[in-house]
Amino acid sequence: MTHAAASGIDSGPVTSPFDIEDYLRRVSGRVDGHLRRIAADQKRQRPARLAEAIEYALLGGGKRLRPALVLASCEALGGDPGDDGLALRFALALEMIHTYSLVHDDLPAMDDDDLRRGRPTVHKAYDEATAVLVGDGLQSLAFRHLLGTGDPRAAALAALLADGALRMVQGQALDIGAEGRKLTEDEVLELMAAKTGALISAAVVGGAIAATGSPRGLEPVGRKLGLAFQIADDLLDLTGDAAALGKRVGKDQAAGKATLPSLVGVDEARRRAGAACDEALAVLAPLGAPAEALRALARFVVTRKR
Amino acid sequence: MTHAAASGIDSGPVTSPFDIEDYLRRVSGRVDGHLRRIAADQKRQRPARLAEAIEYALLGGGKRLRPALVLASCEALGGDPGDDGLALRFALALEMIHTYSLVHDDLPAMDDDDLRRGRPTVHKAYDEATAVLVGDGLQSLAFRHLLGTGDPRAAALAALLADGALRMVQGQALDIGAEGRKLTEDEVLELMAAKTGALISAAVVGGAIAATGSPRGLEPVGRKLGLAFQIADDLLDLTGDAAALGKRVGKDQAAGKATLPSLVGVDEARRRAGAACDEALAVLAPLGAPAEALRALARFVVTRKR
Repeated sequence: MTHAAASGIDSGPVTSPFDIEDYLRRVSGRVDGHLRRIAADQKRQRPARLAEAIEYALLGGGKRLRPALVLASCEALGGDPGDDGLALRFALALEMIHTYSLVHDDLPAMDDDDLRRGRPTVHKAYDEATAVLVGDGLQSLAFRHLLGTGDPRAAALAALLADGALRMVQGQALDIGAEGRKLTEDEVLELMAAKTGALISAAVVGGAIAATGSPRGLEPVGRKLGLAFQIADDLLDLTGDAAALGKRVGKDQAAGKATLPSLVGVDEARRRAGAACDEALAVLAPLGAPAEALRALARFVVTRKR
Repeated sequence: MTHAAASGIDSGPVTSPFDIEDYLRRVSGRVDGHLRRIAADQKRQRPARLAEAIEYALLGGGKRLRPALVLASCEALGGDPGDDGLALRFALALEMIHTYSLVHDDLPAMDDDDLRRGRPTVHKAYDEATAVLVGDGLQSLAFRHLLGTGDPRAAALAALLADGALRMVQGQALDIGAEGRKLTEDEVLELMAAKTGALISAAVVGGAIAATGSPRGLEPVGRKLGLAFQIADDLLDLTGDAAALGKRVGKDQAAGKATLPSLVGVDEARRRAGAACDEALAVLAPLGAPAEALRALARFVVTRKR
């Protein structure tokens, strides 16, 4: 290690001293701790095999980007995303919805994947019926966790969660319907907005609602980051490293799936992801210092390698 | 037609002048109308195939017993289960959760059924991936419908719904784990309480919460009716008519599934269903005339032929 690196001088661009990797590490640690407690609580109920499979699915790693967006968005609007707060409950619920979608997405009848985050998928590690039930149960568990404290303020967030979850399913169905035929650019954008954009967007808006009771103008930030995230995901599938990603790459091409990079080219797709990120940053600029983490996450969404 | 039948003298037992078939017909008509509107709303969104499959699943008939229990329970406690009210929204949400569970239950990886209510199951009429997504989407849609109006009172009902849905999944998992091995009577009762009892129970308790903001002592009624309903279901599978039921009979025996009738005999199982019904009726007796429909439903649960 050079002296410069040790002293931190070269540790990031001058305009962004915020350590996003450290932030994400801290959020994951916290989210994983809570998910572990939720899974342990499930394991006190029967049957054990379902509870173990739920734990296996929930604690399989992952960047916990959606929870990070919820907490950072809450902070950005002056909220305190402390332990047991509404923002944290929403963050965990959103991650459970995301996790359920991965479990079902991997099923033989869907994407038929054997590997997820470097481990056997749930239907491989257990069986297909258990994987169906793990997904179903995680969706219920998400709503139960969010609503279980009896806090009436959770109603608006649960409605947002349900809406995002439904749009995600519509996106999956668009994706399945698209296999084997050529989508237009508009169709690809519609698919992206639903399949991935809906939950990313719900994360940003949900953090704002948890902090202030309203979306407070963050809807476009959610939409832009959702778009940027999915373009980055498609670029990583084309150009990324399977080991770093913990999943197969080149899947979209192999499945004949149209993505934005496949339609407009890698460079143009990269430019559009950057532009979407910049538009989100422009909306966040007036929020000043409290939005520092959210702005760093917006940049991470497009620059990430995993 | 004899004169006596035409004049209605023989149309029911003297102690129960309440026309439960007519009540159920009116509830189904109302529930079907609302579900049709919900499905039509989905069909304004894309993709069309998912929306059509959701409509196919939602409007496949069914007794609408759970919605009837919600509305009757609400009435029993002096509530007005009018159009667009909280009880009606909960009733529809509960029926959507029930419908999703049937769609997933019929999947090849689960019970592998080709027929449901006399029609091809969703994965037969469409395909397996669509059936997974229809179930997933219906669960989200249930919560969205219940919470979508922004009524904070919906939070408690959505928590109840989530809890019932999760217990139902645990019951399904217990059921799958039980195949091929002999369950004890306690295990069978546990399985029944979770797999079917949870939603039946949620229906009764949810109606009370919609009417008064609290379960108002109706939890035991929900539990007893859930037990009675499942025993009746198992008896119909053993002795019922496939045409009237719209599904295969003798399934449990063929699959080697332990049921209460298979463990204790048909007569004893029938006696226990009757006793559970009587216990529910005893709790409901002090509620008087407003609980007439709920008491008639309690009797229907054990006397039904479909």
